[in-house]
Amino acid sequence: MTTLPADLIIRDAMAADLPEIVGLLADDERGRKREKVTDPIEQSYADAFAAITADPRSKLLVAERDRHAVGTMQLSFIPGMTYQGSERMIIQSVFVARDLRGQGIGEAMLGWAIDAAKARGCRFISVNTHKSRERAHKFYKHIGFKPSHVGFTYELAE
Amino acid sequence: MTTLPADLIIRDAMAADLPEIVGLLADDERGRKREKVTDPIEQSYADAFAAITADPRSKLLVAERDRHAVGTMQLSFIPGMTYQGSERMIIQSVFVARDLRGQGIGEAMLGWAIDAAKARGCRFISVNTHKSRERAHKFYKHIGFKPSHVGFTYELAE
Repeated sequence: MTTLPADLIIRDAMAADLPEIVGLLADDERGRKREKVTDPIEQSYADAFAAITADPRSKLLVAERDRHAVGTMQLSFIPGMTYQGSERMIIQSVFVARDLRGQGIGEAMLGWAIDAAKARGCRFISVNTHKSRERAHKFYKHIGFKPSHVGFTYELAE
Repeated sequence: MTTLPADLIIRDAMAADLPEIVGLLADDERGRKREKVTDPIEQSYADAFAAITADPRSKLLVAERDRHAVGTMQLSFIPGMTYQGSERMIIQSVFVARDLRGQGIGEAMLGWAIDAAKARGCRFISVNTHKSRERAHKFYKHIGFKPSHVGFTYELAE
């Protein structure tokens, strides 16, 4: 089992976390372009949170330190036919507060996700990162992920 | 809207399709290693099919020609926080019968998937293919997908 840094809690996200979560999503170059940070937050984020919460196969998590959400990630458990009908975990939207990177928060989050996938009996975990995110590539390799696939995207709106 | 070849039907998979679907999954080099083709099929495939059918966010499809399943793909509609709280479609397990490739069946299937993603209001579609599947890379590019991401995998069992 992953041991968390003593001051870090990983738990389900709550509605009260949403402003901090939206801040995390927007806290990098790609995120800034595609997100919209307002006070109060855009209704579309609250709607997405409600949809994730209502989906028994998805889970939005936060890493909490000093009563703040300093990281977030989303896990989805997807049934599938391949690998003799195995469930797989898909991790999306992994973000750590910019000024707290390199302190093991992301590693603790991913360790938590790996434990959850094992507990659930998933056959594999899949996480996609944009080609340009070289720091993320190093991070996932360090944790034991293999860059095995090409992730193709089809955009439906700009 | 995508126009299908006249003799091709794309529809939800049924339990009676499972032996042919399992055959499709195993009908290439990587598939042969990880699948198990038996008669009757392994229970794990039937269980996975039941899980997909029970999941309102997943859909297993077949392309049918002459009363045979000649292609299969799985679509999942995943809620997400990024892109201002957008839903995304994840396509998995795209297979076309080996001796029928190059006849537009895969293209018809993917066109169907793109239409479904548009109808649902998804922000983007994501599909991963193994690095070694060069033919598939060309295929996805041809349809308009961009190789934007690196797909990292963490295997939990061999």
